[in-house]
Amino acid sequence: MSTDPQGARLRIHYRLAVPVAQAGALARAIAFEQTVELPPALVDPALAQRFAGRVEGVEAAGARAARAVISYPAQTVGTELPQLLSVLYGNISLQPGIRIEHVDWPSALLAALGGPGHGIAGLRALTGVPGRALLATALKPVGLGARELADLAYAFARGGLDIIKDDHGLADQPSAPFEQRVARCQEAVARAGALTASQPLYVPHITAPFDALMRRAEFARAAGCRAVLMVPWITGLDAMRAVRDATGLAIVAHPGLTGAYFGPRSGVCPPVLLGDVYRAAGADAVIYPNTGGRFDFSARTCVALNDHLRGPLGPLRPALPMPAGGIDAARASHWVRRYGPDTALLIGASLYSQGDPQAAAAALRAAVEHIT
Amino acid sequence: MSTDPQGARLRIHYRLAVPVAQAGALARAIAFEQTVELPPALVDPALAQRFAGRVEGVEAAGARAARAVISYPAQTVGTELPQLLSVLYGNISLQPGIRIEHVDWPSALLAALGGPGHGIAGLRALTGVPGRALLATALKPVGLGARELADLAYAFARGGLDIIKDDHGLADQPSAPFEQRVARCQEAVARAGALTASQPLYVPHITAPFDALMRRAEFARAAGCRAVLMVPWITGLDAMRAVRDATGLAIVAHPGLTGAYFGPRSGVCPPVLLGDVYRAAGADAVIYPNTGGRFDFSARTCVALNDHLRGPLGPLRPALPMPAGGIDAARASHWVRRYGPDTALLIGASLYSQGDPQAAAAALRAAVEHIT
Repeated sequence: MSTDPQGARLRIHYRLAVPVAQAGALARAIAFEQTVELPPALVDPALAQRFAGRVEGVEAAGARAARAVISYPAQTVGTELPQLLSVLYGNISLQPGIRIEHVDWPSALLAALGGPGHGIAGLRALTGVPGRALLATALKPVGLGARELADLAYAFARGGLDIIKDDHGLADQPSAPFEQRVARCQEAVARAGALTASQPLYVPHITAPFDALMRRAEFARAAGCRAVLMVPWITGLDAMRAVRDATGLAIVAHPGLTGAYFGPRSGVCPPVLLGDVYRAAGADAVIYPNTGGRFDFSARTCVALNDHLRGPLGPLRPALPMPAGGIDAARASHWVRRYGPDTALLIGASLYSQGDPQAAAAALRAAVEHIT
Repeated sequence: MSTDPQGARLRIHYRLAVPVAQAGALARAIAFEQTVELPPALVDPALAQRFAGRVEGVEAAGARAARAVISYPAQTVGTELPQLLSVLYGNISLQPGIRIEHVDWPSALLAALGGPGHGIAGLRALTGVPGRALLATALKPVGLGARELADLAYAFARGGLDIIKDDHGLADQPSAPFEQRVARCQEAVARAGALTASQPLYVPHITAPFDALMRRAEFARAAGCRAVLMVPWITGLDAMRAVRDATGLAIVAHPGLTGAYFGPRSGVCPPVLLGDVYRAAGADAVIYPNTGGRFDFSARTCVALNDHLRGPLGPLRPALPMPAGGIDAARASHWVRRYGPDTALLIGASLYSQGDPQAAAAALRAAVEHIT
């Protein structure tokens, strides 16, 4: 139809925890709930045609579940993240048994959102690492002083890690106030890089109160940092987009608070939320809990998430998967072979447990150095 | 102990989906995961003592579940919402089987967060409604023009409703651009108020991109609005606090996106998240899905949520519960009797279905007018 050129609608694929006989009615309810928020009988049909969701198909998925596809008009979805989140999962988050499994994204929407400012190629350029997997760790624990954290950062960088990020528990605590910590750690990592003729990134955590966030990002940039860490579900997802646009810094996104969406019956599956949505919102790298660690993503989920971060997504740059959450340094080469070199392994405790951070980092680097 | 005066620690009560024999180890893992993010063996005991969580107690809750209480030091939690959210549920959101059931809040933390700027008494003063329940509706559907929405707002206000809010699906769509909509609706509601010698509130929805949010709040204030609607889980929770502090506007908080946290085994129970946390972050009124409507909060959950919003919470003002989501106008008096007059009933479709919004509003008002 002329008002709906091919591909202009956002198509969302749901799994519904109801028998297929009830799925059509539920899908229609969702299509209206997420848009006009009135029952179909109370909405002028011409208006509904232009603004409400439209059920495109329903099919059984076992005896007690169904799949449904609903498409949403571009003018209801808009081109901004807040409204997109609202249409995607706002009200239906309160209705159990609805799970978003896949989204077909209109290219124009993706282009408007913008995606990673740097992406994988950009992070490789920033770190000067052309072919192999990137290696990352986190500075912790909270409670250490800025000087101690900077010493750790220096040792990890001297050992050959590419990305040294703050733990997301580091905020602006008196033990290591933000500005002091960032200045010291950035200086330490740059010094190590100069000695090793490399360009490791120190990535400070800038999640902060609404009115302090952009100031912390600007402080980090002025201190020489080229990337920052954010928890988008705490700052609000659009804050990540705003930091990208205002500062040009590369952004590492942390999955804090999002786990609640990853239930088997309800929610938004990780490849959509941490993959498509985080990437569209500007994450250059996305941390996620690797399978077999202390969280519970399946191997299949991790591979699908990698694909959503790195694969084609309209005009958006690929983003770097950053598996984490209990990776054993001794198995690093296994994970690089499994996930491919366009991956950053984020390894914390397993390095700390070795006692000497520089030696631990060097051993890790040696283990993956030649896998491309 | 001297470094830990009574009440300075944040105490979180968890339900763990493991037998009690395993609960002690899991609780200790949580206490470290949410703070130092390293296993106990890798953290200097003196530092852990000062910065990590501490397991205060564990007990069985049936054969396959346990309760645990963990307390967190004030200096790790800080006094700002982002870090609080991180300690509360950041990483453990990724670990199924952990549910937060209750929180004991240090009074100093609550005082720092500030809570509602107006609260129930303030909303009563703003609307000029001393004793009875408040009556609210939402302007919709998306797709109507600003003039049509303003006509609806006028009719609802003329009929005697106290709070006329935008639907949270109204953003800045071309069909009713934000500034045009706000100016027209505010004028219409003020005009109706002047005719009826009342002070109904028009409450525009200001959820917006990061860099536009505060501008929309200021525009609303300049247009004469005295309250605004936000979806804190989309803007970032701290944005609500920031709007409170920067504008002094009353804030109605919408639960969009939060439903994923309300699972039976994992998450944060509604009285903590929509009750304590939203209230502490500055919500003067909190919308929630009433029991028996099209979402699935139990009657017990609704009553508990009301209690958390209105009951004692350190120095914070009480916040107004705003049950919604399919309330039948014909049963309004039932809900007011059940929840008490310090409640705002938010009724949408049931008013729209009556055809004449002013008459529907007047009938609703008459039904609850004398219940105090």
